[in-house]
Amino acid sequence: MSDEAVEFARLKQVNDPDSLVARFGSENPLPLDAGIAIAPWQIAYQTYGTLNADKSNAILICHALTGDQHVANVHPVTGKSGWWESMVGPGRPIDLDRYFVICANVAGGCMGTTGPASINAATGEPWGLDLPVVTIRDMVRAQALLIDHLGIDTLFAVVGGSMGGMQVLQWAASYPDRVFAVIPIATSAKHSSQNIAFHEVGRQAIMADPDWRRGRYLAEGVSPKKGLSVARMAAHITYMSDSSLQAKFGRRLQDREQMSFGFDADFQIESYLRHQGMSFVDRFDANSYLYVTRAMDYFDLAADYGGKLANAFLGSRTRFCVMSFTSDWLFPTEESRALVHALNASGARVSFAEIDSDRGHDAFLLDVPEMFDIVRGFLDAAARERGLR
Amino acid sequence: MSDEAVEFARLKQVNDPDSLVARFGSENPLPLDAGIAIAPWQIAYQTYGTLNADKSNAILICHALTGDQHVANVHPVTGKSGWWESMVGPGRPIDLDRYFVICANVAGGCMGTTGPASINAATGEPWGLDLPVVTIRDMVRAQALLIDHLGIDTLFAVVGGSMGGMQVLQWAASYPDRVFAVIPIATSAKHSSQNIAFHEVGRQAIMADPDWRRGRYLAEGVSPKKGLSVARMAAHITYMSDSSLQAKFGRRLQDREQMSFGFDADFQIESYLRHQGMSFVDRFDANSYLYVTRAMDYFDLAADYGGKLANAFLGSRTRFCVMSFTSDWLFPTEESRALVHALNASGARVSFAEIDSDRGHDAFLLDVPEMFDIVRGFLDAAARERGLR
Repeated sequence: MSDEAVEFARLKQVNDPDSLVARFGSENPLPLDAGIAIAPWQIAYQTYGTLNADKSNAILICHALTGDQHVANVHPVTGKSGWWESMVGPGRPIDLDRYFVICANVAGGCMGTTGPASINAATGEPWGLDLPVVTIRDMVRAQALLIDHLGIDTLFAVVGGSMGGMQVLQWAASYPDRVFAVIPIATSAKHSSQNIAFHEVGRQAIMADPDWRRGRYLAEGVSPKKGLSVARMAAHITYMSDSSLQAKFGRRLQDREQMSFGFDADFQIESYLRHQGMSFVDRFDANSYLYVTRAMDYFDLAADYGGKLANAFLGSRTRFCVMSFTSDWLFPTEESRALVHALNASGARVSFAEIDSDRGHDAFLLDVPEMFDIVRGFLDAAARERGLR
Repeated sequence: MSDEAVEFARLKQVNDPDSLVARFGSENPLPLDAGIAIAPWQIAYQTYGTLNADKSNAILICHALTGDQHVANVHPVTGKSGWWESMVGPGRPIDLDRYFVICANVAGGCMGTTGPASINAATGEPWGLDLPVVTIRDMVRAQALLIDHLGIDTLFAVVGGSMGGMQVLQWAASYPDRVFAVIPIATSAKHSSQNIAFHEVGRQAIMADPDWRRGRYLAEGVSPKKGLSVARMAAHITYMSDSSLQAKFGRRLQDREQMSFGFDADFQIESYLRHQGMSFVDRFDANSYLYVTRAMDYFDLAADYGGKLANAFLGSRTRFCVMSFTSDWLFPTEESRALVHALNASGARVSFAEIDSDRGHDAFLLDVPEMFDIVRGFLDAAARERGLR
């Protein structure tokens, strides 16, 4: 496809996505933590498998920062397969022969749920920075309204990694009676200073691009592609481990025998990162990147419960399965361990696994058999307790 | 000072620095690894203390990526004290009552040694990208010509951290008979894939700035400040440890009680990083940042010795004191340990200390008593062997 065709395909998804869409009018506004309720608003979602008669087999999957609702189908913009097909499918750990799976694009996103690229009905133009900053709790509130809309009372499970894991934790805290089991993976109950720092670099890269136009680039017919690409490059490094970069790229040269003594992409790692940056801008909106990173930065679950994380889960009957990866330096195991300590202090039912992997943070998206075994086993056990076949 | 005055003060240092300057004409060109010899060229340097009669007490200090020759005096642009005054001074570990200290701005730099901002005599305009890419070996070659110029045959010691440590290792490999002792700190014999990746993000941020003008910004009277600032922000995160960021900033807010639900610098870490970025552009040239990062990326000492690092030091009589810091994830201890193994394999005299510190890579610039004690003790012992008083 030409650049224009890709851009057209991407922008189509914002307001008229190739997904199911639940639309809410002024009688059902979305109240945001910023203190403003927005209406109309919409949430785009995919479903997989079959909801059983008593609606007890629904699993909500929450996506990460740059993910979307296309978990297990071909992506309508990139043409690539779904981002978690190794986890979700018939016979997979999240088994579509048993479970009904829902995944919705997050509030603030750019794949059909209301976000900064969506049309603001009050002006007829894209929201841009007029959209209030959304939080992880806002994302979960929107998902809960979708679950109401689908007539589902209690979710069998909520599962997600990274920012998806933050939403999982928020679900458990905000709606303890509506979630039977949760699986937060490679995540944290609060975003660290280092992670805020990396996000701020990405945002500054976007806002430094003159084509950002103070967020009005869509109305002005331009796009801050260079800034967004740099933001993605910086972030991408944090998703991998030092040792996986060393194993995958090392100091190997790209399509040459000698260094060029110039600023071309001499090294494979440079070429790879440039490609990651350039392909990202084909499928993501720059303002959404600002909003969704901000939501993660603001996430500090304990802060809503008097500064004590255990209070977020007091009295909860939800089953927790917490997972982290040894080489993940973005959401290191110690943050999962702190979460587990809080869950123990609250008396919650929790199991915890630190999985040995050298793949860094992105391990949760990759082919990690131990993770699959744990998810399958945990869901099997929960399904028996829940009385699912 | 106004922005213009700061810019003027910075640009003055490029060609007419407030330092000693050794100027070399066409009879003394600087041969570069790129295969080109440049002339005329110059190297700017500071000295401290007194050279003894037999010129045996000279210590060369090599600076890091964004450092310069102003080790132990007020900086002519920023007005701040020297970058290693805790290490270098009368009675300090590098004791100016005993030693004569030299520090030169690196080739490719922007504080008076020939670099991309310097005037190219052939055109009368700044070199810009017409300057060949320089390497760590080129930097060291330029320093060796300076040492010749000063009439010094053998350096008592060469000392430096980070990129300075790379130069130290190159000195030991290229001129084994001219260095009695070396202290490479928080460094590596080759730049890792992850570190190349972070540098590439910084370079892409600079080159994405429309005011970079393909490197011709000085001639065109503009400056890619936003791009350079983003590059510095990204790099700065890598100089600190996760735990030091957590201790210093955590999730504390900047001058406010509540989050703004916007894209201001709500968090102290954001405000700090923005300040780091903005103040950096007052004292550094964007093209120099490209060149000096590239020099680090190209550094792979073993590659020049048949792929075997030990070969770089075979037969060396130089004394090595290698140091690393526990929380340094940019130049992790394992890279120093690999260096020490190679030195052992080559039969070199080497001592190694991994120093416990939570300050990350920047520890080598900070007040770390154990580092000071080791440097002082190592230099004392070497001075006795050398017969210095």
